[in-house]
Amino acid sequence: MAKPKKQPRPKAETPKGFRDYFGAEVSQRSEMLRQIAGVYHRYGFDALESSAVETVEALGKFLPDVDRPNEGVFAWQEGVEEGKGDWLALRYDLTAPLARVYAQHRNDLPTPYRRYAMGPVWRNEKPGPGRYRQFYQCDADTVGSGSMAADAEICAMLADTLETVGIARGDYLIRVNNRKVLNGVLEAMGLGDDAGLHDAVLRTIDKFDKVGEAGVRELLGKGRLDASGAYIDGVGLSEAQADPVVAFLTSKGVDNAETLANLRVAVGDSAIGAEGVGELEQIADLLTAQGYGPDRIVIDPSVVRGLGYYTGPVYEAELTFEIFDEKGRKRQFGSVAGGGRYDDLVKRFTGQSVPATGISIGVDRLLAALREKGRVTAQDQGPVVVTVMDRDRMADYQAMVAELRQAGIRAEVYLGNPKNFGNQLKYADRRNSPVAVIEGDDEKARGVVQIKDLILGAQIAENATLEEWKERPSQFEVPRAELIAKVREILASQDGGQG
Amino acid sequence: MAKPKKQPRPKAETPKGFRDYFGAEVSQRSEMLRQIAGVYHRYGFDALESSAVETVEALGKFLPDVDRPNEGVFAWQEGVEEGKGDWLALRYDLTAPLARVYAQHRNDLPTPYRRYAMGPVWRNEKPGPGRYRQFYQCDADTVGSGSMAADAEICAMLADTLETVGIARGDYLIRVNNRKVLNGVLEAMGLGDDAGLHDAVLRTIDKFDKVGEAGVRELLGKGRLDASGAYIDGVGLSEAQADPVVAFLTSKGVDNAETLANLRVAVGDSAIGAEGVGELEQIADLLTAQGYGPDRIVIDPSVVRGLGYYTGPVYEAELTFEIFDEKGRKRQFGSVAGGGRYDDLVKRFTGQSVPATGISIGVDRLLAALREKGRVTAQDQGPVVVTVMDRDRMADYQAMVAELRQAGIRAEVYLGNPKNFGNQLKYADRRNSPVAVIEGDDEKARGVVQIKDLILGAQIAENATLEEWKERPSQFEVPRAELIAKVREILASQDGGQG
Repeated sequence: MAKPKKQPRPKAETPKGFRDYFGAEVSQRSEMLRQIAGVYHRYGFDALESSAVETVEALGKFLPDVDRPNEGVFAWQEGVEEGKGDWLALRYDLTAPLARVYAQHRNDLPTPYRRYAMGPVWRNEKPGPGRYRQFYQCDADTVGSGSMAADAEICAMLADTLETVGIARGDYLIRVNNRKVLNGVLEAMGLGDDAGLHDAVLRTIDKFDKVGEAGVRELLGKGRLDASGAYIDGVGLSEAQADPVVAFLTSKGVDNAETLANLRVAVGDSAIGAEGVGELEQIADLLTAQGYGPDRIVIDPSVVRGLGYYTGPVYEAELTFEIFDEKGRKRQFGSVAGGGRYDDLVKRFTGQSVPATGISIGVDRLLAALREKGRVTAQDQGPVVVTVMDRDRMADYQAMVAELRQAGIRAEVYLGNPKNFGNQLKYADRRNSPVAVIEGDDEKARGVVQIKDLILGAQIAENATLEEWKERPSQFEVPRAELIAKVREILASQDGGQG
Repeated sequence: MAKPKKQPRPKAETPKGFRDYFGAEVSQRSEMLRQIAGVYHRYGFDALESSAVETVEALGKFLPDVDRPNEGVFAWQEGVEEGKGDWLALRYDLTAPLARVYAQHRNDLPTPYRRYAMGPVWRNEKPGPGRYRQFYQCDADTVGSGSMAADAEICAMLADTLETVGIARGDYLIRVNNRKVLNGVLEAMGLGDDAGLHDAVLRTIDKFDKVGEAGVRELLGKGRLDASGAYIDGVGLSEAQADPVVAFLTSKGVDNAETLANLRVAVGDSAIGAEGVGELEQIADLLTAQGYGPDRIVIDPSVVRGLGYYTGPVYEAELTFEIFDEKGRKRQFGSVAGGGRYDDLVKRFTGQSVPATGISIGVDRLLAALREKGRVTAQDQGPVVVTVMDRDRMADYQAMVAELRQAGIRAEVYLGNPKNFGNQLKYADRRNSPVAVIEGDDEKARGVVQIKDLILGAQIAENATLEEWKERPSQFEVPRAELIAKVREILASQDGGQG
């Protein structure tokens, strides 16, 4: 046997682009996802948790014709002997696994199949600031229905979801566009079947958000000097050819009816364009009937994100309230969810075309928005800490925390070395503890406990004048039998003070 | 550019050893984990979600001196060019990542650090029936406290957890043993420092559950003929040398005091043994003070699982009610959680010894136990299905489901092709739907809707005689305005009928 080599100490580090989540970060996300699942469930969607690991073959999208198919995904090869087994990979989103699941289980699943899924996905990409290689997604999709009622339902559910988690009506807007309308516009431009030209126009449209109407006109024509001074070649279309695209992008009217009328002009006599406008009209009508007005969900042809990917309606949820960015400038919070209709989800597997439509919520962004709005607090309240004055009386202290917990109060006994009492209070501080309980030999003999209001104590230490200090003591001696009642009273006063 | 090769259709299959979870399987697990998190939180434990991916170096345990360190874990090498980057792997449990997290963040974390974690872990093992390569764990650990109060707390918390999720008192028992007592027994046997002999005795003890006292005596002595007829060589000890081990394994008395007295005899004058017995006594005293009697948590030296791995107290939670196994035989449900104290968790990283103790709950087994006990039902109730009699009136039907949902009732409109009404009822059946709503042109004109009680309908179809059928109609016509009230009434009657 070879001698085991002496290993140097391993580094205690997450791999690059990965991170850990602590305390409130975890519990707030769980609670938000639970609320979202509640709305999805009420809409008839069923939970699905597919395995995190898929065959590269089933994931599909990232299968280039290279030997090692791990571009963009974390992939490895099965089998003890290299080169013998399947390539496996971590899922990069929740849609590709849905396609596999539906193809695999379609005989046992209802059709249409409404499902939601929430969980981490992994991307083998260069990490950047705030950009991680593992993050949460939360999706809802309807598979097997081509009806616009499915799309309208997804939009209504998204509005309900945002309100349920704590985004007030008026603070969000769901905007709806349609890829078929764009296809109609491309037909109206008379570009013929030149796929390269179509792609060039699509890429230009994707820049509408950044460069605006004039910029799009330049990029569709001769070209444009960008902000950095570089010259971007244009697509080379004439002004007249560019007209329908610009008409499309700027067709939003004062209400859905005006927008739809503008779109009908933009698509000219294109059949696919007319179909797209008709779909948007159906969605608008269905939503109106359910009471979702354009203050919540609106037809808006300037939504261009995802138009290249989806095949029919496209939706995007934006939060419209303003925040300050890193540089102190005001801007809208922006997008927190998006989705649309995509055909041929399952076709790769079965050869059968299966229509599907769905949304994906950016879990971290939505949670950040809730923090911004004060809907969730940055930090969890810590536990009541029962200090240890006499290590031989640990049983007494544990009986105290047991009593507190039975009363529904988060509580713990100090489990470190109790020798230095100052360390116990420092610990309570680090735990964000609202209250410390102290029972030394003297208190024990007299049948009392000391209760310290740590929040008030910290406030007094920071702000109070001597008079206030005298008036509001932050430490109380109460009979042992009144421990629970007094702790409750202090916690209630802190809640009042904070809210 | 190389021509893209025509790909054959991919197989719609999970990789071997992986599976998908549907509907109630997912939501019941979430709900159980939420309840468990609630108990842990009340005990002062903080949530931690570490990344699913770790460096192989940090995971440690599976690092053999071979080129490709992927035995037991799913591992791959970072970097576009092979051979250049770190080896990464999926976590195989939640303890190794805890060690890395604590070493990495120890300056920002409180000490002692109480944390809980729940989530999937991955094992690159040969899958078998009911044995998957991805499964859930749910752990709670206290890092940085050597106090037996930490161990007692973990046991109390485990008891509270089991009762909170729905295991009644009397249906579970938490048994506590201690590795140090066993070490004392080994000393008392006079085996000296022969590590090979120690390991041989440990392996034999591990078989106590299966072979009992007599079997252990044989295995410690000359050897034993096992059930399959194969002869297992013994350790070769004398009867007298075997006595302390057998005394240890069979030392459980009528109460903790008697057990502890027996153990004191078994360890003779071993110092480490006396320390171990003292620790068990402290745990027993602390638990008694908090009201956890031996009907819930008991000192039991016959618990041997994990004794090889842990360094101090060891705990195991067993469910004591009986179930029928696959072969129809009665047996105890068995273990659902286990844990213990392990030193040097963090030492690999920092060189500093940090004591820690914790438990891991087998999430799938506990959920199976709750199903066995009828605490959770196998299937979710489906949504009320509003059928589509006239596809041009989809807006009406969606308004109906919106109304139902606003009343808190899970509801959906049928989104498939509505042409064949029979298919809509089949769909409702597959969805486990309690109620179907029907509004054709005639009903619309008369301002009524038809409401079908699908559960009662199914019962009548299966069981009822003609008389009962007449008495209890399963379809009702009500004014449109009474839709919500009638659906509520039917749902309530079904709950009553089922409960």
